[in-house]
Amino acid sequence: MGKDESSTADLLQAVAREGEKLQANERRNFLKQGLLLAGGALSGAAVPGAALAGESNLPPNVPPWTKSLGSGVLTNPYGKPSPYESHIVRRNVPWLTADKIASISFTPLAELSGIITPSSLVFERYHAGVPPIDPAQHRLMIHGMVDRPIILSVDDLKRFPSTSVIRFIECPANGGMEWRAAQMDALQFTHGMISCCEWTGVLLSTLLQEVGIKKDAAWVLAEGADGSHMSRSIPMDKALDDALIVYAQNGEPLRPEQGYPIRLMNPGWEGNTSVKWLRRLEIGDEAWYHREETSKYTDLLADGRARKFSYVQECNSVVTFPCPEKPLTERGRYEVQGLAWSGEGKIKRVDVSFDGGMNWRPARLKGLVLPKALTRFGLEWDWDGGPAMIQSRAVDETGYVQPTYTQLREARGNSSIYHKNAIHTWRLHDSGKVSNVQIS
Amino acid sequence: MGKDESSTADLLQAVAREGEKLQANERRNFLKQGLLLAGGALSGAAVPGAALAGESNLPPNVPPWTKSLGSGVLTNPYGKPSPYESHIVRRNVPWLTADKIASISFTPLAELSGIITPSSLVFERYHAGVPPIDPAQHRLMIHGMVDRPIILSVDDLKRFPSTSVIRFIECPANGGMEWRAAQMDALQFTHGMISCCEWTGVLLSTLLQEVGIKKDAAWVLAEGADGSHMSRSIPMDKALDDALIVYAQNGEPLRPEQGYPIRLMNPGWEGNTSVKWLRRLEIGDEAWYHREETSKYTDLLADGRARKFSYVQECNSVVTFPCPEKPLTERGRYEVQGLAWSGEGKIKRVDVSFDGGMNWRPARLKGLVLPKALTRFGLEWDWDGGPAMIQSRAVDETGYVQPTYTQLREARGNSSIYHKNAIHTWRLHDSGKVSNVQIS
Repeated sequence: MGKDESSTADLLQAVAREGEKLQANERRNFLKQGLLLAGGALSGAAVPGAALAGESNLPPNVPPWTKSLGSGVLTNPYGKPSPYESHIVRRNVPWLTADKIASISFTPLAELSGIITPSSLVFERYHAGVPPIDPAQHRLMIHGMVDRPIILSVDDLKRFPSTSVIRFIECPANGGMEWRAAQMDALQFTHGMISCCEWTGVLLSTLLQEVGIKKDAAWVLAEGADGSHMSRSIPMDKALDDALIVYAQNGEPLRPEQGYPIRLMNPGWEGNTSVKWLRRLEIGDEAWYHREETSKYTDLLADGRARKFSYVQECNSVVTFPCPEKPLTERGRYEVQGLAWSGEGKIKRVDVSFDGGMNWRPARLKGLVLPKALTRFGLEWDWDGGPAMIQSRAVDETGYVQPTYTQLREARGNSSIYHKNAIHTWRLHDSGKVSNVQIS
Repeated sequence: MGKDESSTADLLQAVAREGEKLQANERRNFLKQGLLLAGGALSGAAVPGAALAGESNLPPNVPPWTKSLGSGVLTNPYGKPSPYESHIVRRNVPWLTADKIASISFTPLAELSGIITPSSLVFERYHAGVPPIDPAQHRLMIHGMVDRPIILSVDDLKRFPSTSVIRFIECPANGGMEWRAAQMDALQFTHGMISCCEWTGVLLSTLLQEVGIKKDAAWVLAEGADGSHMSRSIPMDKALDDALIVYAQNGEPLRPEQGYPIRLMNPGWEGNTSVKWLRRLEIGDEAWYHREETSKYTDLLADGRARKFSYVQECNSVVTFPCPEKPLTERGRYEVQGLAWSGEGKIKRVDVSFDGGMNWRPARLKGLVLPKALTRFGLEWDWDGGPAMIQSRAVDETGYVQPTYTQLREARGNSSIYHKNAIHTWRLHDSGKVSNVQIS
């Protein structure tokens, strides 16, 4: 080759000619190849050939945007998604909470890639709405059983050495609708109360070192500045381990609904313990048993007792493709994908079943495998057009294996709302559609 | 302690009482401690005490948002930043390019935390504006020296196994204004043509396996669908190594200005080789020498010859705090922070100088240290109120050491625009203000 540079017009014509040749001569090859590969003859590549065969409007197309100037720089000084992706938004379940202020919206997991959840799509949960906090007026007080109580402005906090980690945050009610088979045909609603971001802030241990904790100090009360004064008791072990006072999320300041200007972040623990709009940390020698750890966020067991301080979000996983929002469109090869996570550490392995748990195949862990973070898995699979019961089962680095519904109910009974981490089943129909079913 | 739950009113009153006590009795302690710590007596914590001393309006404050309902769920189904952060936007340099369509906007690095750049703030560079592409009409053709030429829709592409990586992208003109001391007092403009995201797509090697490359194939031409038909020649080694065809960025679909619906991504290489709005890959046996690799993106050397195919963005770093946008406000302890990166792999170490390169202190690498990704570093420093010349010098895992200006000019002369990775200097004034100076 070694051509000289072609003019734009030459190039466009060359593309058009090449495309016409492809349409005339090569199209059936793709189809044949697609069917061949769909049968499993070759490995290592998914096959889009069949999809191509169904297209009626193949290239060459020289659409208007290829022949004109686009929009200029700084059209959006703070960028926005393409208008063609306006369906990718948080959604709520209108009947799930009593009102629209103290409510929940869910992350559209079916539309996401990788492990980072964009800040605009991180699920929301709060008890008195999103407070419009002016950061210049916000303060964090640390007091109680400490040597040197302190009041910090947001700027003060930012002077301390910072730490950045990629960690998931999950509401313990994620999947709660599944306990009693109030099942919705949408991944966004079955598992959408989980998100994963890069969080930046100051280790709580750094601040506790600054104030000096007294000898018998064993608990930290975290309280929010919103109208609900959300508060939770945090054991000192966690406070001195990996708890962070966070001011940034995915590189930029926290979003208002995520606790702007500062929040607590307890990696791997119930999201509600990561108190948003944090205004106060009190150090004490016993837990406080406040409203949000008695009336809520405890698990009623079969014998009538309540499981309390059930902080850790245990190992869990879900298949994100296919799912109700992302059906299969034709027979052939696909990469089945999903997400796994554990509040105890790293994901060690994930297996996938296509027959409701009778047989399992190991999935690949894709990209970064970080502790207490979403971990993406994938598995190539040839769909023969028949029905399937698709499940995933994750194992974390402690050896904990994600339980079946039967196992979870044996341990916790039927009265729980929180901590539903049982193996989830998608029913794939002949049509390629996917629905939500519960099998033991 | 072991209190029963207090009512909200009780709690607020308790907070108020505690705050009053602090104001009356403890405030001077913070100040004393601050000065003590600022002198370096204790290690391990930055000191906000002095900042507190300057405050006239300490807590307890019970602002209106603590006593009322906030905004409800789904006020923003696609979330937005706090209105108090509306200054965090991309900006341009009006005189830098001939018009506003084929231009540049810069990432506000001084305002960012961690290593992820939010998609809304990723720098923009393009040659004919942002095309408003309908993904349903977009196609990628792979042809030339291949066994099975192919045309893929975006949905076809998404059927192939995907890969997610966190990698930086940088325009080779980043820092170009510094070569001849056209120096701007803003980190956003000296280094803001770099960003770092989680990118998801299909390895180009997977697609090349699908089409089958012929024996003598050695180069890949990548061409965009925008009005400039931006095109670059990519050596086959890179195409078969880590080049990706990307459709998602930080979990969600690519932004329009970042190549929506698909772009090439050559990790660690000049950003312009990662052709956006990718429509065509042609396989050949020689490079094409198209417009954007002859008239642009070559480096004119002192002897009049042009350095061509200077793909790799070599090891570089910059201090992000303090910087012109983030001056120091008072004496005391700070965490000096910065970013380092290398197109050759991981950052191995970063040193920081406060005296213009005479003495160096090792910085901590903070958070994830990933190949071809931004890496954040930090170093605690007590500012005595005097002037300083602050520099950072990065070393990557190949042993390459970021050069001085003198070293870079000896190698490349004075005519270059691209690949300015010399050690950068911030001049800290007695006032705490920071300006951009160039020292050899």
